[in-house]
Amino acid sequence: MDYQTPQFFHVMQYADDADGDIIDMVSGNPDWEPPAAIREGLHEYADSDADEFQYPPSDGLQSLREEIAARRNVDPDRVIVTNGTSEANYLGMARALDGDCGDGVVLIDPVYPYYTGKASMLGGDTRLVEANRDGGLDTEATCEAIDDDTAVIVLNTPNNPTGAVYDLNAVEAVVETAADHNAIVVVDEVYDHFDFSGDFESALMLDADNVIITSGVSKSMAITGFRIGYAVVPPALVAAAKTRHMLVNVTTSRPAQQAVYEAYRETDPDYYADARDRLESRIESVTAALDAAGADYTKPDGAFYVLARFDDFPGTMANVKTLIDEAGVAGMPGATFGSAREEWIRFALVTPRVEAAAERLIDYFAD
Amino acid sequence: MDYQTPQFFHVMQYADDADGDIIDMVSGNPDWEPPAAIREGLHEYADSDADEFQYPPSDGLQSLREEIAARRNVDPDRVIVTNGTSEANYLGMARALDGDCGDGVVLIDPVYPYYTGKASMLGGDTRLVEANRDGGLDTEATCEAIDDDTAVIVLNTPNNPTGAVYDLNAVEAVVETAADHNAIVVVDEVYDHFDFSGDFESALMLDADNVIITSGVSKSMAITGFRIGYAVVPPALVAAAKTRHMLVNVTTSRPAQQAVYEAYRETDPDYYADARDRLESRIESVTAALDAAGADYTKPDGAFYVLARFDDFPGTMANVKTLIDEAGVAGMPGATFGSAREEWIRFALVTPRVEAAAERLIDYFAD
Repeated sequence: MDYQTPQFFHVMQYADDADGDIIDMVSGNPDWEPPAAIREGLHEYADSDADEFQYPPSDGLQSLREEIAARRNVDPDRVIVTNGTSEANYLGMARALDGDCGDGVVLIDPVYPYYTGKASMLGGDTRLVEANRDGGLDTEATCEAIDDDTAVIVLNTPNNPTGAVYDLNAVEAVVETAADHNAIVVVDEVYDHFDFSGDFESALMLDADNVIITSGVSKSMAITGFRIGYAVVPPALVAAAKTRHMLVNVTTSRPAQQAVYEAYRETDPDYYADARDRLESRIESVTAALDAAGADYTKPDGAFYVLARFDDFPGTMANVKTLIDEAGVAGMPGATFGSAREEWIRFALVTPRVEAAAERLIDYFAD
Repeated sequence: MDYQTPQFFHVMQYADDADGDIIDMVSGNPDWEPPAAIREGLHEYADSDADEFQYPPSDGLQSLREEIAARRNVDPDRVIVTNGTSEANYLGMARALDGDCGDGVVLIDPVYPYYTGKASMLGGDTRLVEANRDGGLDTEATCEAIDDDTAVIVLNTPNNPTGAVYDLNAVEAVVETAADHNAIVVVDEVYDHFDFSGDFESALMLDADNVIITSGVSKSMAITGFRIGYAVVPPALVAAAKTRHMLVNVTTSRPAQQAVYEAYRETDPDYYADARDRLESRIESVTAALDAAGADYTKPDGAFYVLARFDDFPGTMANVKTLIDEAGVAGMPGATFGSAREEWIRFALVTPRVEAAAERLIDYFAD
């Protein structure tokens, strides 16, 4: 079996190796400080008793699971602490594909490439459904793509790479159609703290027994390297998901779990609000530059990416490398995200140099 | 698809919930201090720049991979830092089962139950081959069990639960037979620091292109909760293993990686020697008690477990619970480890109370 390797590390490496000063708008690494309690939590943990250096429960530290459960208003038994949101998505998709409900995987195009990679790794047969022009869910087309061979539909809201925040009614329609076909819906909400529209509502609100919610603190706490995510799994599906988690990873790294627990408890809501303000200001800078460059784009309602299309400069890997070499700005090729936005380039707004990047884009494309 | 849930957490929970004072000889958690550099490394990391809190390379911090590669005398490109040795075993078995070489999995009985769980999770068809009476590899029977449908053979040396240290010639015979059938051999060497015989030799010595070595520092550095393991993969197989690692976990938790890197650099060999001395003394205590109780056992050459059989007291889950309730000693039922040692009970020697446990066993079985 072959499965696709996501190209993020490839582009980052190219940018690292390039001559000159490159502004990295490739990776989804927040560039701001984590909550102070992350650092304090690690210091405290470093001095704890040796027995706290041993296996925590497989599904996560009880304290952390209860904290997450309280925040999401669910039973702690439904929460699995995972090695990042990525493992949570893997567990959800695997649980669906392990069932007797076929091997169909419905994904929304543009698509986060880890979803397609996981689908092929798990033996799934992927069907891509194009998003609306603005990145929103095309409810009718999505529901039409679901049939009795569909095991799982993966949704991501707020969306990477489009920045769309899905309407909960649209998500509900997909969930109901999925239920009619015994399919599971995995809803990846890792950007839930980055909603600029005020319209984001978690799919947990649907209280549906075929919905697995995944999220994590990689983005919200600016600690992508810690690998703390979680899945909230319906009661009937949770035992199998926990078993797979145990068989693959045994459990999630404890220093990171403990630090995140402390940060959940100690971090003021202003921390998250400041990150949103910072990103909204960056969105203004970049979209103004895109206007000046005559580029096409949709202003993101959430997450922290902007997709843009430039005239006569399709977002191929070759052109992305040209942009790195000639403009000093590194983005991701649209073709990385399926076929619906092949002509586009994704810019991540998680660099303090967004304004400088915006100027470089104007200079380059205004020529 | 159903797959088996390892029973360790179940027995630990039973022991936790039991009345009275229970000596835990269930889990494989070292009870001694980690190297001082683990704590220092965490403190240093906690104060590092925010960008060090973001994604490390998917296959692990370069510094850590180079450190492991130097110690194992292999090219760093062959090293993948994993979420514990367990993920490394998963990657190795998955790589083998993803090939076109059938779905047969050959395991040695008694068997570490995570191997059987992973095999069924990955769609493998498991064949158990009984170990020799002393726990050593039955080379002839193992080689006979390998055929063209065999994708992977998993060996574990020093062995959990038998304590056997495999002869390298025996491993080599299995590796050569496997090569004749295009099968991969995963050799789990996580107990490589706990060799009391002086005879342990890593399967890396064989320099075979169908051998994946897995190991980690959970046991050697007494940090089972950190989840730092690694795989050393032959060049032809490494790209696919790295892709699966990326698709499941993205990468391994960075605070733990950094602390382990520091500990590799700063820890004196005496640290590991002291742990071996401590365990050898515990082996003496327990085997003396087993002699006094008239039990059957093989003195372990490596790892930190003793398997014992008591007259008229087979190691069923029910009897293990009886032993918890009536003797205050918690072990693992032999049936957890396949069928070859169903009548036996495994005692882990990673408690400072081994002598007290030995006395309790004498009191209980001398009645």
